[in-house]
Amino acid sequence: MQEFDLIQHFFTRSTLAQARDDILLGIGDDCALLQVPAGQALAVSMDASLAGVHFMAEADPYAIGWRALAVNLSDLAAMSAEPAWFTLGLSLPHTDTPWLEAFCQGMADLASAQGISLVGGDTTRGPLSISIQVHGFVNPQTAWKRSKAQVGDLIYVTGPLGDAAGGLCLEMAQTTIEHAAQLGFEGQDALRRAYLLPYPHIEAARILRPYVHAAIDISDGFLADLGHLLTASGCGARIDLSSLPISSALQDLLGDEAALGAALAGGDDYQLCISLPRAQAQVACEACEAAGIPLLPIGEVIETLGIFDQYHQPLPTLGYNHFNAASIQQKRLAAAISRQRV
Amino acid sequence: MQEFDLIQHFFTRSTLAQARDDILLGIGDDCALLQVPAGQALAVSMDASLAGVHFMAEADPYAIGWRALAVNLSDLAAMSAEPAWFTLGLSLPHTDTPWLEAFCQGMADLASAQGISLVGGDTTRGPLSISIQVHGFVNPQTAWKRSKAQVGDLIYVTGPLGDAAGGLCLEMAQTTIEHAAQLGFEGQDALRRAYLLPYPHIEAARILRPYVHAAIDISDGFLADLGHLLTASGCGARIDLSSLPISSALQDLLGDEAALGAALAGGDDYQLCISLPRAQAQVACEACEAAGIPLLPIGEVIETLGIFDQYHQPLPTLGYNHFNAASIQQKRLAAAISRQRV
Repeated sequence: MQEFDLIQHFFTRSTLAQARDDILLGIGDDCALLQVPAGQALAVSMDASLAGVHFMAEADPYAIGWRALAVNLSDLAAMSAEPAWFTLGLSLPHTDTPWLEAFCQGMADLASAQGISLVGGDTTRGPLSISIQVHGFVNPQTAWKRSKAQVGDLIYVTGPLGDAAGGLCLEMAQTTIEHAAQLGFEGQDALRRAYLLPYPHIEAARILRPYVHAAIDISDGFLADLGHLLTASGCGARIDLSSLPISSALQDLLGDEAALGAALAGGDDYQLCISLPRAQAQVACEACEAAGIPLLPIGEVIETLGIFDQYHQPLPTLGYNHFNAASIQQKRLAAAISRQRV
Repeated sequence: MQEFDLIQHFFTRSTLAQARDDILLGIGDDCALLQVPAGQALAVSMDASLAGVHFMAEADPYAIGWRALAVNLSDLAAMSAEPAWFTLGLSLPHTDTPWLEAFCQGMADLASAQGISLVGGDTTRGPLSISIQVHGFVNPQTAWKRSKAQVGDLIYVTGPLGDAAGGLCLEMAQTTIEHAAQLGFEGQDALRRAYLLPYPHIEAARILRPYVHAAIDISDGFLADLGHLLTASGCGARIDLSSLPISSALQDLLGDEAALGAALAGGDDYQLCISLPRAQAQVACEACEAAGIPLLPIGEVIETLGIFDQYHQPLPTLGYNHFNAASIQQKRLAAAISRQRV
């Protein structure tokens, strides 16, 4: 199959390139032509996923497709933007129809669920990598920014932390089989899904839109990403470690201490971390509860720079750094194994 | 230097991340927030450049940076869109400050010249590759589309064809040294620049905006790209091969026959190929002449599908296909060498 036919076949199907009234011209010309609603700003983010760095080349292509789009949608959620369109740059070592079929299905299932439509892209022969740019709409007056946290705000997350790191351990490590066995299928599945099929918190962002001061999505690790938010806002935080949401599956897999480590520094969870003014906290929590969306208090914004635990001890703002590690799997795996109970 | 510092240092400098009133929030948050002017559509295009496929890893990093942005700007030119913003996905095998310095300078020089500003991106450790997405504005009623060519239109290009293929031969092939020597420095330099530093025809597109029916930029090769335009428009073309603009430098390097081959199928020239209604041809040509911009007639749109020469002989719509060739250099080089006069 020729390159143009390949692109045409997989990327113009209606599940990925869904019809939207604001797409004046979709895939197939030199540019897509798109219409941003009056009064709305365009929110734009791009994230690349490379085999061997962000995912394993031999991973389920459905999950690779889902995840590549999910991590980008998560950036829209972190600004409380409404998803609209995305473009896809795909580099493939060869044309593999079943692989592309599953990859597109994973991407399409999430795209349909979130109402985001593929409007363009570029396919090249090369090492497996995926770069996606998402576009969304947001009211420029009320868009969430990292820089808007204020001293006294309460800090919340939208779900458990560290599960994705646990899932990565399960995906990678034969050494965890004995612990994995204790988990049972359900626990293992929950952790694996947290890593392979992260859910972008677009709906939570929609509900919380009027209340939030500042937000960030947790991709590099909770402490690292909270650190980015606090640095941008010029303040610090006190975190109650005993209130961090850690799943029993993660505790069963790694033990309490390593599970806490995974929750603090594990990354890949794509939960939102938000800073809510105290006066709005109750109504925001009630709105989330009514929608069945978790919103879990874990600390507060303080004046002193840095991140501290409930005993005023400083916590390190660790996070993944692409240029200081051979690969994300190696580093995280090593960390997770070294933390495992023996 | 840490990843975030690296990004911060190179990509937030004012030459790349130029101030624009329509950037509400630039690099540094989860998304950039951007304002599209009322009444304008957003034109979006993305193109990936991989080392070993689109450029040589050991090429001058200034040219790599320039070229990666130029090929994307060329897509905006092909829709007659005004450049506004771009995002950059960069995968690098290691942190090399002088390389990054030159890469950014090449990109910044073109970005400044075209008034386009970097608003976001993602940097990862991995094989050298660059994926850029450009955003521009265009009046949705008058945007050029591939599908709007009409029978009777005249076909023009904005400059010489095949020079980039000649430049690639010079960059790649020791075997052309004897012919290269005949060219002298000026001729060699012109061909090399056509390949390494292509100029996106934004200004030509601005001047021609009111007159054109359909357009495409020539990236895969003149016949291949004209073929795309004609297929989208449901018509054919007659090309006067004797009027194709072929530089004397290219003829000196490759000889007449191979130079014609390079002009028809060489790719990488990023000239615009446009379809102009006859009634507008004179005024369009005069407008270009007044601005010192070449606009060269090469044929006409006809009803019969396919592309034909002036003797009604069909021409093949060849073009580069990523999945049918080991690498662009190998394929083009082999073709160019096989065509060289002996």
